Amino acid sequence: MSIDFKQDVLAPVAEDFAAMDQFINEGITSKVGLVMAVSKHVVEAGGKRMRPIMCLLAAHACGQKEMIHSRHLAAVIEMLHTATLVHDDVVDESGLRRGRPTANATWDNQTAVLVGDFLIARAFDLLVNLKNFDLLKDFSSGTCEIAEGEVLQLQSQHQPDTTEDTYLKIIHGKTSRLFELATEGAAILAGTEQYRQPLRDYAGHFGNAFQIVDDVLDYISDAETLGKNIGDDLMEGKPTLPLIAAMKMTEQGSDAYKIVHKSIATGGTDQLEQVIEIVKTSGALDYCMQRAKQETDAALQSLQALPQSVYRDALANLAKLALDRIQ
Amino acid sequence: MSIDFKQDVLAPVAEDFAAMDQFINEGITSKVGLVMAVSKHVVEAGGKRMRPIMCLLAAHACGQKEMIHSRHLAAVIEMLHTATLVHDDVVDESGLRRGRPTANATWDNQTAVLVGDFLIARAFDLLVNLKNFDLLKDFSSGTCEIAEGEVLQLQSQHQPDTTEDTYLKIIHGKTSRLFELATEGAAILAGTEQYRQPLRDYAGHFGNAFQIVDDVLDYISDAETLGKNIGDDLMEGKPTLPLIAAMKMTEQGSDAYKIVHKSIATGGTDQLEQVIEIVKTSGALDYCMQRAKQETDAALQSLQALPQSVYRDALANLAKLALDRIQ
Repeated sequence: MSIDFKQDVLAPVAEDFAAMDQFINEGITSKVGLVMAVSKHVVEAGGKRMRPIMCLLAAHACGQKEMIHSRHLAAVIEMLHTATLVHDDVVDESGLRRGRPTANATWDNQTAVLVGDFLIARAFDLLVNLKNFDLLKDFSSGTCEIAEGEVLQLQSQHQPDTTEDTYLKIIHGKTSRLFELATEGAAILAGTEQYRQPLRDYAGHFGNAFQIVDDVLDYISDAETLGKNIGDDLMEGKPTLPLIAAMKMTEQGSDAYKIVHKSIATGGTDQLEQVIEIVKTSGALDYCMQRAKQETDAALQSLQALPQSVYRDALANLAKLALDRIQ
Repeated sequence: MSIDFKQDVLAPVAEDFAAMDQFINEGITSKVGLVMAVSKHVVEAGGKRMRPIMCLLAAHACGQKEMIHSRHLAAVIEMLHTATLVHDDVVDESGLRRGRPTANATWDNQTAVLVGDFLIARAFDLLVNLKNFDLLKDFSSGTCEIAEGEVLQLQSQHQPDTTEDTYLKIIHGKTSRLFELATEGAAILAGTEQYRQPLRDYAGHFGNAFQIVDDVLDYISDAETLGKNIGDDLMEGKPTLPLIAAMKMTEQGSDAYKIVHKSIATGGTDQLEQVIEIVKTSGALDYCMQRAKQETDAALQSLQALPQSVYRDALANLAKLALDRIQ
């Protein structure tokens, strides 16, 4: 039976979700017109709001009764996520995100950099209002690691020798760390110390699976899937797992190996079709799917430390759904 | 008798300054090589470290005996300042700062945006370690206002109708607000509630004077003064006080008025010599100097609420020194 996002993930926290959405809108008010306009634009361009939903589900899964602070935290998570997207789009020179023009394309790089800074500051400002030092420390150190992951990704661009270990460090920073903040943060606020680590583990593994799937989709999706275009990563010479695995699974010095090696080193999509073929026939794709499956299983396993509830089930459903994108 | 920076400002906090410098170096450690390299580059390119010095002097002026946290705070101030400079240089497409290549010029915009993000996150991370909610709230709301000031400046670029009131909002955000955080933060840490507002007022007025002087120097300095080049602001169509005042002091519709109006609207330095001439002969320059003097006087006046000390004197000297640049 297939999982439905609205029914099997969102429904248990639909009310919290609406309140959280309002928090975000209230949170991005500014006296400066351009700050408002850009913030609205980027926040409205948000997708499924998976991260705040995870936060809300985790809060309930911990038995949190009074949800006002958790909704507030979920809004902070989404604002931080939005801020990183705004800067990512500047870094990647992206013109579109989910079919909508990016902030840097609609305005310019300058505006996008500065409004991204505003959103980071505002997210922290709202977080400070929750007056919880453990939470603040988790977020302040976490955002350092997120920035470091993004820089590591940049540093690894056009580097064919990037290892799977480095790849895992990159995706932990750019993706999984914020997932962890969303769920562990909920446990901190709920005061359920015993669920902090299991929820962090769930989110970390889920984040890894999610990003591996995302990186696979860059080679096997059709254009409509999730607004991603085939070959975006290859274009930028990003050594993602499909390519790292392909190089491991072809003989060094073989034509296939050389094609992948060169594509990472130079970037560009001249040899996209050959690279896709190699990724598929070398076993790299199977390997990626297997790794994504392992990470998802580890995420589901971590949830077992929490008491059974509709919220725990929804967290499990969310992880399964993400994996379904490549199955 | 002329004031000497080292002797009359820095000397009373020389020991704290050295310790603060070490805090900064320890604070920017990262496992990611590129983060380290860029952070070192931009932190070492720092100038006189006026903001952390202000913070250290303010701490002593409040009677702070145990300086370890104040030194820590001063380091946070400098890191935040550095982070904003890194992003400013991306926004302004600057290649040089104080005669050294900027991060965006040495590496690229991408790296500068992401390492700037890291420095903001790290500054907050170090601030959280001080475990003071009043301080955190001041900083988190303050950094929002700083970002808003920067966006307001961008929004006002090429807008000849920008008022002096808007100009004051811009410089409060881009300059004075961080000055305020430096001195008010020191009072918060010292637990001397009665000195919070006076120190904030001192810094706010001093910041305004400092920025007005800076903006004047864009029209009257020689190239060597402080590494600023004449006409940089005009080039970018920034409606700074010298131009706003010049338009107020020339007849609307006159040639002089039109030249200034057009220079703001279009940017560029084709008419730089005429604009400088108008700024000087219209009385705009005198007006700016008078405003800078007023702000400096207000800053000095605010200090009177603090007990006499060598530290209070040094804060006064710092404000006087900044004004001396145009006298």
